[in-house]
Amino acid sequence: MTLPAFLLEPLLRAALTEDLAPWGDATTRAVIPPGTKGQVEMRSRQSGVISGMQAAELAFRLIDPTLDIDILTPDAAACAPGQPVMRVTGDIAAILMAERVALNFAGRMSGIATLTARFVAEAGPARITCTRKTTPGLRAVEKAAVAHGGGANHRFGLGDAILIKDNHIAAAGGIAAVLTRVKAVRSHMMRVEIEVDTLAQLQDVLSTGGADCVLLDNMDTATLREAVGLVAGRMITEASGNMTLPRIAEVAATGVGYISVGALTHSAAVLDLGLDYV
Amino acid sequence: MTLPAFLLEPLLRAALTEDLAPWGDATTRAVIPPGTKGQVEMRSRQSGVISGMQAAELAFRLIDPTLDIDILTPDAAACAPGQPVMRVTGDIAAILMAERVALNFAGRMSGIATLTARFVAEAGPARITCTRKTTPGLRAVEKAAVAHGGGANHRFGLGDAILIKDNHIAAAGGIAAVLTRVKAVRSHMMRVEIEVDTLAQLQDVLSTGGADCVLLDNMDTATLREAVGLVAGRMITEASGNMTLPRIAEVAATGVGYISVGALTHSAAVLDLGLDYV
Amino acid sequence: MTLPAFLLEPLLRAALTEDLAPWGDATTRAVIPPGTKGQVEMRSRQSGVISGMQAAELAFRLIDPTLDIDILTPDAAACAPGQPVMRVTGDIAAILMAERVALNFAGRMSGIATLTARFVAEAGPARITCTRKTTPGLRAVEKAAVAHGGGANHRFGLGDAILIKDNHIAAAGGIAAVLTRVKAVRSHMMRVEIEVDTLAQLQDVLSTGGADCVLLDNMDTATLREAVGLVAGRMITEASGNMTLPRIAEVAATGVGYISVGALTHSAAVLDLGLDYV
Amino acid sequence: MTLPAFLLEPLLRAALTEDLAPWGDATTRAVIPPGTKGQVEMRSRQSGVISGMQAAELAFRLIDPTLDIDILTPDAAACAPGQPVMRVTGDIAAILMAERVALNFAGRMSGIATLTARFVAEAGPARITCTRKTTPGLRAVEKAAVAHGGGANHRFGLGDAILIKDNHIAAAGGIAAVLTRVKAVRSHMMRVEIEVDTLAQLQDVLSTGGADCVLLDNMDTATLREAVGLVAGRMITEASGNMTLPRIAEVAATGVGYISVGALTHSAAVLDLGLDYV
Amino acid sequence: MTLPAFLLEPLLRAALTEDLAPWGDATTRAVIPPGTKGQVEMRSRQSGVISGMQAAELAFRLIDPTLDIDILTPDAAACAPGQPVMRVTGDIAAILMAERVALNFAGRMSGIATLTARFVAEAGPARITCTRKTTPGLRAVEKAAVAHGGGANHRFGLGDAILIKDNHIAAAGGIAAVLTRVKAVRSHMMRVEIEVDTLAQLQDVLSTGGADCVLLDNMDTATLREAVGLVAGRMITEASGNMTLPRIAEVAATGVGYISVGALTHSAAVLDLGLDYV
Amino acid sequence: MTLPAFLLEPLLRAALTEDLAPWGDATTRAVIPPGTKGQVEMRSRQSGVISGMQAAELAFRLIDPTLDIDILTPDAAACAPGQPVMRVTGDIAAILMAERVALNFAGRMSGIATLTARFVAEAGPARITCTRKTTPGLRAVEKAAVAHGGGANHRFGLGDAILIKDNHIAAAGGIAAVLTRVKAVRSHMMRVEIEVDTLAQLQDVLSTGGADCVLLDNMDTATLREAVGLVAGRMITEASGNMTLPRIAEVAATGVGYISVGALTHSAAVLDLGLDYV
Repeated sequence: MTLPAFLLEPLLRAALTEDLAPWGDATTRAVIPPGTKGQVEMRSRQSGVISGMQAAELAFRLIDPTLDIDILTPDAAACAPGQPVMRVTGDIAAILMAERVALNFAGRMSGIATLTARFVAEAGPARITCTRKTTPGLRAVEKAAVAHGGGANHRFGLGDAILIKDNHIAAAGGIAAVLTRVKAVRSHMMRVEIEVDTLAQLQDVLSTGGADCVLLDNMDTATLREAVGLVAGRMITEASGNMTLPRIAEVAATGVGYISVGALTHSAAVLDLGLDYV
Repeated sequence: MTLPAFLLEPLLRAALTEDLAPWGDATTRAVIPPGTKGQVEMRSRQSGVISGMQAAELAFRLIDPTLDIDILTPDAAACAPGQPVMRVTGDIAAILMAERVALNFAGRMSGIATLTARFVAEAGPARITCTRKTTPGLRAVEKAAVAHGGGANHRFGLGDAILIKDNHIAAAGGIAAVLTRVKAVRSHMMRVEIEVDTLAQLQDVLSTGGADCVLLDNMDTATLREAVGLVAGRMITEASGNMTLPRIAEVAATGVGYISVGALTHSAAVLDLGLDYV
Repeated sequence: MTLPAFLLEPLLRAALTEDLAPWGDATTRAVIPPGTKGQVEMRSRQSGVISGMQAAELAFRLIDPTLDIDILTPDAAACAPGQPVMRVTGDIAAILMAERVALNFAGRMSGIATLTARFVAEAGPARITCTRKTTPGLRAVEKAAVAHGGGANHRFGLGDAILIKDNHIAAAGGIAAVLTRVKAVRSHMMRVEIEVDTLAQLQDVLSTGGADCVLLDNMDTATLREAVGLVAGRMITEASGNMTLPRIAEVAATGVGYISVGALTHSAAVLDLGLDYV
Repeated sequence: MTLPAFLLEPLLRAALTEDLAPWGDATTRAVIPPGTKGQVEMRSRQSGVISGMQAAELAFRLIDPTLDIDILTPDAAACAPGQPVMRVTGDIAAILMAERVALNFAGRMSGIATLTARFVAEAGPARITCTRKTTPGLRAVEKAAVAHGGGANHRFGLGDAILIKDNHIAAAGGIAAVLTRVKAVRSHMMRVEIEVDTLAQLQDVLSTGGADCVLLDNMDTATLREAVGLVAGRMITEASGNMTLPRIAEVAATGVGYISVGALTHSAAVLDLGLDYV
Repeated sequence: MTLPAFLLEPLLRAALTEDLAPWGDATTRAVIPPGTKGQVEMRSRQSGVISGMQAAELAFRLIDPTLDIDILTPDAAACAPGQPVMRVTGDIAAILMAERVALNFAGRMSGIATLTARFVAEAGPARITCTRKTTPGLRAVEKAAVAHGGGANHRFGLGDAILIKDNHIAAAGGIAAVLTRVKAVRSHMMRVEIEVDTLAQLQDVLSTGGADCVLLDNMDTATLREAVGLVAGRMITEASGNMTLPRIAEVAATGVGYISVGALTHSAAVLDLGLDYV
Repeated sequence: MTLPAFLLEPLLRAALTEDLAPWGDATTRAVIPPGTKGQVEMRSRQSGVISGMQAAELAFRLIDPTLDIDILTPDAAACAPGQPVMRVTGDIAAILMAERVALNFAGRMSGIATLTARFVAEAGPARITCTRKTTPGLRAVEKAAVAHGGGANHRFGLGDAILIKDNHIAAAGGIAAVLTRVKAVRSHMMRVEIEVDTLAQLQDVLSTGGADCVLLDNMDTATLREAVGLVAGRMITEASGNMTLPRIAEVAATGVGYISVGALTHSAAVLDLGLDYV
């Protein structure tokens, strides 16, 4: 999943500004003789799945468009410890100025892709999907990282799909009232999903209709299996709530279609990437 | 550590735009009867240290300035599972629109504060400090979260202090050459730190002078202790590299002044906060 | 359909800046004695449907937060010639500075709402819907104006739904190939629509499956009726192409679900609104 | 009239962001095989006057700087139905992503240029001129389109010329008071125009002096002729108010210098342009 | 001359960000006990003319909207040494954070107003006017400061008036060619000025016509007097080039209408303003 | 001192927009035949020190990337009257559009560099340093100009170093209290400076400790000499307050380390640079 460069560029400019404002890099200015050339390799210290190469490359290019950059391990590819993922050649001061921003993007995104891949490996035919529990400002790149790890993308934000949660149902007077309302006003180009916590609620959803997907929230595995049986293919099913890695295989075995995991984006550790002088 | 609100506001606007652009919340528009009022409490599901209340409050206020907001657990305070940290009263559609952004900030920052506090508890008199391995765009709030957790803040970025690393030394011709250069050009209002990997390098630093701090990188505990002894209080000492929680007490016992930990910001899991309808 | 104010505000700031940059209103500065108070009414010179009151109010407020503003005809309400739609009281220089921007928004949006209402009146049970043929930068307010006129909103942009057009099919190797590809990669939270120009193409779509909606493009009324019959309720149907006002009733009578009309946003004349000194 | 590219670029970035945010084009990503090349032609379906080629070209370039773009019909040139106006060759996914934004700019601007040209054709030696009744955010490109259609540009906004209207006169105590005030404070580099509705007001203007131009508002043709005679070349004359196309020749025959027409920018229909796969 | 606050606000936000980014004021955070209240007065250390009170007030308000602010000496008023010009009461940390930005605006603008007033005092009936030799980014506030000092404002920038200089004449083939061109294309709402260096050039201008103003550049006083005589009231006259303070009275005595002085904005020293703890 | 181009670019875009918005250069559009080529040289009319070449070059490049630009006198080099500093060849309309912005940057920065060099020439071994009394929005380029003139840079803003002034001491309860507070909370990567007005205060500072530098404010030369003697090399010393050029040599002779001069940035006259047609 490649993002249009013009959408990515403001994120990179902001990150470089954060690190280099207001007057540039005091260290390279003080110590690197102007014109010094060199070559570095970004390497992984761990095994995992790579993501963020597009962002990292852009970090270097925005500092110095004349750098020579080779992506050695593309987004969505697995990497082994020690594996080089990018090679950058040119003005060494420019490389060192962009280094941290490039690594911060690539490490974080690769961390998300790697964690996603671990969940995907457990899920069999069920699809692992992300949530809106993303880092403020970085949702697009984090959703791309989920895709690089083999996950499916859920809605992006509040404007592109309807997802009716417990608080909505409480505020709006119950499942039947809510779904009736939605049927009257929904766009024909927007999917509708509704959260249920119990089989009784699920029955209400099934009898009222008007939703494309049902979010089976915080159910134990047995209840989940029963819920999937009740739906019987009439809606897309998604399980959420406390979906830890050890539980995924068992959840997937219920036949549920999607398993959504907030931790993919809110609690992934970075993949340890570093820049080595060659 | 409170950030000026006008610096925080653009981050919140960007995050709300990310979630609500281009045309607002399709779900609340479809299902919540206009004018519905309600009250919610943000509660922690875990024990930890709270951070991000200023950001969370601003998320709600930017959506609806008429909301009534009480911070029940201030930044830097510990929280127990189930403890309410913020109460919001008013238009329920507005509350639900801002909910995710408020939680994404508060959960992430509290996660960082909580992890920092765990390291601080191990470090005794040594200070735990952060790095530039922060989330792109969120460095200021993440450095504030480190402070809320009891950590010390390292330099903010490349422009406010000089930190000479291995790659700089390699590109610039060795420690003596680098420090001589720095002495000639450094600002009198900027601190200088230099990284060493060996005791021999440390000797070079001590004999050349010109640095306020020395970063003792990737040393085992015994070497670290020896290095601290060699420095003998003439410089500030900082240990870095593979500083995992189980190792902190032992590292601190070497007498080193600061221990820097990238994981505080690059790999903290969120603190699980949720919004409950009251 | 109300947009979150923080999303609308940048549009109004940009429009006011366009009119008032770089140094304000030379005319009011030269001729209005400071402190002069007054009252104006925005009135419609034509019958139509009002939209843009939220934007117009914000234009006045951004220039002078102390103005007293009453919306007399809310968004989505019909208006008769001469009917007052908004009353503004306060500093007259501020009112005159904001006047043109307020009118430019309200006139344009009311023009769209009015034209939409005319199409809706012809369409019976079929829904009139908009397209992406909107004014650059104003899509959100224009889609809101369509809703105020009684129209249904189509997808917002390229990121929130999949709409496969003739050029996509040509570039990607035919309907079956395209739909097979889409089924494998689509998000479960995103709708899929595909354009067909002939009944043969429609048959391909029906036999391959994988789309929620079919766009019946540039068909004559007889073919359209046949197409709707072929679909037989298995997909949402939408007619497009040359959908002029005189033809709408006949098209609607085919049983098609949606009729999309680019002219709603690309060729609506403004509703003539003016500001009268009271 | 060519605008500096750096002024146009933010408009195009905003429009592309509106269409492609937050994560790009879901359709091309799903269906177009990466690397597919192709050629398209933008063609007019109607006769008219072309405008917006500079903006359309920039839309394509911002998505993909490697596209090959030929402008076949330049701004301000007439076009016949079916006439190709631009040819774009290269990555087909990039072309399809930029298509709608390019067409939205070119269609709207060509619509304005075409409508302007129709008025100009009726006006003989009188000049057709635009107003501030433009689309919020697009005034510069719309004023350029008026120029491409052969019209004259009025002032840009509130800061570059003084135009005293009825509401100003009412608030400031009459024509003599207003013009006396203006003479004292006006910049020597700024033109002054004043609106009159009656011949009596015109007499006041002529006897007080201090204006370069007089706006003869909402007069019938006979009154207008009389007014032009009264002015006798001492000021520039401009007619406004209800200046519909059928009336222009007659108005122009009064000898008035300028005829201002709000409809040029507030109610022009788009020129129907489309992109055809070659 | 008051600028619309919404135009001034981005300048103040940028200046505060420049001083306080990325994480606020390290000094007040370290040393001022939270909640400390106090009162300060901004006082002039010199005699002069005050300008920039609007900007200074906004600097304080953006940091803390609850501060109590009294403007004691308004824009355009003279001040004596020691005279208080603004009083601010409230949170002392907020006051100290905004202090430097407030003073930087007020000192610079008052410096310009003061220098302008000195030129105006020498110029008798001739008007002193500014140029485009302003500080990048601050033109609007600097032109306002010129007005506060009693000067007349020249055009704002390249888009609001035509000023034909020597380089234009050289590139475009001489005065007659240039003015003929301009007459054909100029807007009726835009003034035209042309620069001449010799009386022969002036004769060309007078015989060709088409300009409202003539810029008599770098002439000695005798030539200037002759030029003004030649023009004989048919155009506005403006003298420029080496217009130092000692020369102004003599230049004004030639009867020239305007004297433009780049130094007003490019070389004014600040007026020394300071903030005293009360 | 070279600033990263991506940090400089927004300043140049803002300045060009200020001069060319909203619709470009009316004069070149009216008078320069499209396609006219030419060559100009930027020349100094005075002797001084050049700064701002990087900004001036960027001004030209942003208007027209195809211009041929040679920097003939680099930043930090001295120039004689008449000396060419930059040569630009290409489209003459583009050159004339960018001219004023390029000169406004280069003239202002060269003025600062020139004034700094004059102070440096008087200061012998003492270093001349700047303050935060800079032009709002231009601090980074002005601090670079100080460096080009041979000056030392003080802290950039409120966030990168602690500088405790008289108002802080007054609000926080005296020198001992303040320094004790600072020692407890300061970052190890941030320098601390404290202002003293008397020798008694200096004694307090020396006995409390905790500061790296002491600012000796508004002392006469004899007191200053005594203060430097008291410090005896234990802290960096800086003199400030009324540091006019004639006094510098005498102040430097006290042995003080740094002399800070607000006038470098708040009251430097421009260096007179002009663009000559070749």
